[in-house]
Amino acid sequence: MGVDLDQVEKEVLDAQEVADDQGNNVRALKAAVKAGEATKAQLNEAIALLKKLKADLDVKRKAFDEAVGGGSKASSVNKEAFRQALQNVLLSRCFLINSFAIYGGVAGLFDYGPPGCAIKANIQSYWKRHFVLEENMLEVEASAVTPEPVLKASGHVERFTDFMVKDKVTGECHRADHLLEDKLKALLANPLEGGKRREIEDVLARLDELGAEELGTQIAKYECKAPETGNEISDPYPFNLMFATSIGPRGDTKGYLRPETAQGIFVNFPRLLNYNGMKLPFAAAQLGQSFRNEISPKQGILRVREFTQAEIEHFVDPDHKDHPKFAKVADLEMLLFSREKQVGAVKKPVLMRLGDALAQGILENETIAYFIGRVFTFMTAVGIDPNRMRFRQHLQHEMAHYACDCWDCEVECSYGWMECVGIADRSAFDLKCHAEASKKEMTAWIAYDKPKFVEELVVEPISKFIGKTFKKDAKTVTSALKTMTEENALGLKAALDAEGEASLKAFCGGGDFKITKEMVRIERETKKVSGKFITPGVIEPSFGIGRVLYCMLEHCYYVRQEEDAKEEDKKTVFRFTPLVAPTKVTVFPLLQREEFNAVCRKLCDSLIDSGLSTLMDVTGTTIGKRYARTDEIGVPFAVTVDHDTLQDNTATLRERDTTSQVRVGLEDLPGVVRDLVNMRTTWEEVQRRFPSQGGAEGGKEKGGAAGDYSLRCP
Amino acid sequence: MGVDLDQVEKEVLDAQEVADDQGNNVRALKAAVKAGEATKAQLNEAIALLKKLKADLDVKRKAFDEAVGGGSKASSVNKEAFRQALQNVLLSRCFLINSFAIYGGVAGLFDYGPPGCAIKANIQSYWKRHFVLEENMLEVEASAVTPEPVLKASGHVERFTDFMVKDKVTGECHRADHLLEDKLKALLANPLEGGKRREIEDVLARLDELGAEELGTQIAKYECKAPETGNEISDPYPFNLMFATSIGPRGDTKGYLRPETAQGIFVNFPRLLNYNGMKLPFAAAQLGQSFRNEISPKQGILRVREFTQAEIEHFVDPDHKDHPKFAKVADLEMLLFSREKQVGAVKKPVLMRLGDALAQGILENETIAYFIGRVFTFMTAVGIDPNRMRFRQHLQHEMAHYACDCWDCEVECSYGWMECVGIADRSAFDLKCHAEASKKEMTAWIAYDKPKFVEELVVEPISKFIGKTFKKDAKTVTSALKTMTEENALGLKAALDAEGEASLKAFCGGGDFKITKEMVRIERETKKVSGKFITPGVIEPSFGIGRVLYCMLEHCYYVRQEEDAKEEDKKTVFRFTPLVAPTKVTVFPLLQREEFNAVCRKLCDSLIDSGLSTLMDVTGTTIGKRYARTDEIGVPFAVTVDHDTLQDNTATLRERDTTSQVRVGLEDLPGVVRDLVNMRTTWEEVQRRFPSQGGAEGGKEKGGAAGDYSLRCP
Repeated sequence: MGVDLDQVEKEVLDAQEVADDQGNNVRALKAAVKAGEATKAQLNEAIALLKKLKADLDVKRKAFDEAVGGGSKASSVNKEAFRQALQNVLLSRCFLINSFAIYGGVAGLFDYGPPGCAIKANIQSYWKRHFVLEENMLEVEASAVTPEPVLKASGHVERFTDFMVKDKVTGECHRADHLLEDKLKALLANPLEGGKRREIEDVLARLDELGAEELGTQIAKYECKAPETGNEISDPYPFNLMFATSIGPRGDTKGYLRPETAQGIFVNFPRLLNYNGMKLPFAAAQLGQSFRNEISPKQGILRVREFTQAEIEHFVDPDHKDHPKFAKVADLEMLLFSREKQVGAVKKPVLMRLGDALAQGILENETIAYFIGRVFTFMTAVGIDPNRMRFRQHLQHEMAHYACDCWDCEVECSYGWMECVGIADRSAFDLKCHAEASKKEMTAWIAYDKPKFVEELVVEPISKFIGKTFKKDAKTVTSALKTMTEENALGLKAALDAEGEASLKAFCGGGDFKITKEMVRIERETKKVSGKFITPGVIEPSFGIGRVLYCMLEHCYYVRQEEDAKEEDKKTVFRFTPLVAPTKVTVFPLLQREEFNAVCRKLCDSLIDSGLSTLMDVTGTTIGKRYARTDEIGVPFAVTVDHDTLQDNTATLRERDTTSQVRVGLEDLPGVVRDLVNMRTTWEEVQRRFPSQGGAEGGKEKGGAAGDYSLRCP
Repeated sequence: MGVDLDQVEKEVLDAQEVADDQGNNVRALKAAVKAGEATKAQLNEAIALLKKLKADLDVKRKAFDEAVGGGSKASSVNKEAFRQALQNVLLSRCFLINSFAIYGGVAGLFDYGPPGCAIKANIQSYWKRHFVLEENMLEVEASAVTPEPVLKASGHVERFTDFMVKDKVTGECHRADHLLEDKLKALLANPLEGGKRREIEDVLARLDELGAEELGTQIAKYECKAPETGNEISDPYPFNLMFATSIGPRGDTKGYLRPETAQGIFVNFPRLLNYNGMKLPFAAAQLGQSFRNEISPKQGILRVREFTQAEIEHFVDPDHKDHPKFAKVADLEMLLFSREKQVGAVKKPVLMRLGDALAQGILENETIAYFIGRVFTFMTAVGIDPNRMRFRQHLQHEMAHYACDCWDCEVECSYGWMECVGIADRSAFDLKCHAEASKKEMTAWIAYDKPKFVEELVVEPISKFIGKTFKKDAKTVTSALKTMTEENALGLKAALDAEGEASLKAFCGGGDFKITKEMVRIERETKKVSGKFITPGVIEPSFGIGRVLYCMLEHCYYVRQEEDAKEEDKKTVFRFTPLVAPTKVTVFPLLQREEFNAVCRKLCDSLIDSGLSTLMDVTGTTIGKRYARTDEIGVPFAVTVDHDTLQDNTATLRERDTTSQVRVGLEDLPGVVRDLVNMRTTWEEVQRRFPSQGGAEGGKEKGGAAGDYSLRCP
């Protein structure tokens, strides 16, 4: 990433501008030729220049693409093969299972088998630690079954839809935009006349913006058919993605499974504000299942019908979005892909310090910048390659109905760049919707830094005179006076000042009461105001746990290259971080002998006592093969009990990625491994602390590069 | 529990027997009087004796009840007041929130607010440690959305129902059995003629057995009306408790939200068996949401429509239910309430060693006994009072449609004895149902201890002769021979032995082929069989996490009595175990001064770094009041930073239940508290290790007894 991208980008932009200008020249000349005001030779000369400029632009664009580099260089064939190999491992090793497989399965539903489940639990528990504990958030667990009024208020009943088309023969359903997208991309893969190509590219760019009608027009124009069958398809129509159900036995209370966990926080806002001592800002968090009845789910566990979300709603005074801990993340460098970069000529993200991005106005405020930083450190801790992760700002039309700004944390995997976390500014949208629908206050009191002084009209009924005169009607009169408009109050004051008395009826309606001057004080006064009620803004980092998990699996999976290994001997490795690894440590007896086994069993017990998931491999194969087997399932540490152990109570501790080994006392082992797993120490530190041990593996192996697509499992 | 219950019980049983005999005498005499074979005087004498015997039985029963004692002595008024006080704390302190409260709430749906959510997460994570990690279980996470065929096979579509009645005017729905139960209990509360009383008691005892028809008869007989309105009610009819939905956009795939997590394990059995190397026994575990559309949920979070289950399915060879780790739990003592004790005269559980219960045949096998022991240690670790917990065996008619034996872990709370964990022997029911419905193998291979030798009839077609003769029909002939019944094979053999040839048609049907002796070998042979395929039995410990949590809250909540405190000064305490406490430690600066605050902030950071949820209380109130405040929310440890801290870097560490204090170095504090929370050390050990500190609280306080109902919060 050392190339000066800004310089290269500027060259592209300059070339684009020159070419655009010449394009305008050509159009003008065409008109002039028609009007007899220019010669055909002049026009031809201009067209030749335009061609040259465009070729130049293409060269510059390619140079830029190469300078940026990244995983996109890998061919789609390699990606497909890599994914297939990984998929095979994930299914055969029970990381994932197709739900209800014995009944033929259900599209979009996946189960996590033992290692997948353990990884997921580890990611979730680190999420709670990194966010809920360290940021002192208020965690809640709300119902997934949600009554209709809540989701009507939030806009989901009306707007949480995708456009669907049906195969006119089989009735099979498809997402309209996906069909059109596939068709257009297929067309672009063939040679096309320039105008046609630009037209298609334009539709593709606007795909998310298209309403039912234009989507229908485009589908008809490009003659989309049902995939596989090739049958005619229906016009597109909206399909609500929520699973509907009925709550209670009467059958008259409609409900849905929540499509996001966020609403469970918003509806509890008044209680949570109260719990927080009525103070802003504060963040609430929730981790749980959400449900979306996708039209035709594909892409493995990246688009599923039931998934785990981890959402944070940070409630904040919209006028004070500074963050006290921003300095802690300001120096983090990451790829930012702003709206400007996306719509500009050069569609590439930029590696930046968060502090600089904020200073340059690329990020709007400290709070959103701080969360981007925290998401970045979370993602790298669970094993996402920082070079294949970027934060991309949503284009205007991309944003959900509730958002006013949004940065997605996208991770590159074999499917392309996948949104794993969305960091949205939902403004006050949700709280206002719920306040209006529920008729409950959803506001917080904000104290001004210093009190403000405002002038206001005070109307003060003097009860002793009113009571004396009106007796049982006193209340009516008092209330009428108190609820007068400012205009009427001033009118009454003028009348009383002039006449000493006035008929209340003329100013308030209602009964005909004669008011005298002594009965009411009407005056302009300056009042001290120390704060105000506001509807808080909301910054929402929202995680799709399954997506984070899957992308991490892709980034951690590789083939270990041994210098002179044959193709069939190549060994696959998951380089899980110790934090997320499903099994933390494997224990081997060097030989199948009871004295070794006894030591191993005792060691396993003490490792498990320390909360470490532990395996014991007592098979008689070579240590090298047993190491390879633990590498394959991503166990970060292995302990071998050998002859020396029986003498001096030490054993060999081996680290998976470096394959280096140290010698550690048996009683120290659980503590050392626990500290490694909890990131309280590093392998380098352990290597300094304990004597190193000659490698039994022959030192021929070396780690592969992160997610290198040229490496494939057999 | 020191009384000789067996002796007292025997006395009751003897008295019961004598009274029963006399009852028979009276009935016989009545018939005899009618037939003129006995005098009325004889009958009256017999009746008088019966009355005396019954009075004697009553006295003995009461004596027994008093000997057993327990929480049931507390009056229902106290229970109600205790519950109301606790409920107020739980709602006001945000442990629980009525879901969607701003929209009026939904019956049977509760959210967990921050402290409730933290406790729940702690219970769940200890469950995973105690069971999944320490017992090496295979954890899975399966879909909640479930297609209909799965739940048809499991029997839930047909049988997972409750009987419902409707208010004929308002349409309001009620559980038929609950209405009848309430009505009968109300009747019993009044004076009743003996026969009538026994009749009602009999219906109450059989309540769970009643089908729609008899339930209807009884409801009519006892004139049950709709509660509150007093309206007429409909006949009872079954209502399925599953939430129904539709999967996918076509609307033709019916689905349900799972009513239990267990099915997600059963359908994955073949994959899990494979993951476990095809070996039995093994256990799979799942923790997740289940959904039941209860007819009219009451009892707070004890009966809700969405709840967290933690289920274990232990797959085992039904002929080998021994457990290698049983010895580890054999000495645990707990209250066991067997079926015999429940149907006997004296309906009381017995305090027993698990080892003894197994030896006496009260528990059927080691596996079920081992799990009862593990459940017991789990429950006490999370804060359930062992004296208010019992294991009750289901009566025959109580068991779910899938169970053949079941022991409930019941916990006493203000609602009575609540089932929190069920330990059911589901036998092979579920696997067999799914095998039949899915047509997939759901069996495991069991190797015999030593091979068995069995005689079988072998039919071996000799292909070279068959091929030569029949050419293209060879396959048909071979197949016909192979699939013959044993009887036909013996017939064919006899024919071939006698004639040297035979028509295949006579023995197999199909084409008319002439078989000669050389074409087939038919012989009895002894075969060595090393094992067999079986459908495993399943032992299922199933936890309702919300119920465990609620009962724990009741057991942990009490009013701390200070010797001379006024009523309004009484302080409530949650005596949460450090393991489940939502906040582990509070940090106080002795005075509101920046030098104290700075030390506190640094200490908080290092406590949080150690994974401990930490609060800081910087208010200027007295230390005593601040301690009381942390006691009220159940924080087990408090650290006070004072003048000495600034000199020697030590601070006071105070334990909530004993209110005793020690002096610990700041750098040791995070480790000490972490070890206390993870149960790696005890407060007694900490007191031995560190110097004690004079109590700033004056030592006037003492802990209340567990869940004592006489103690109430203001």
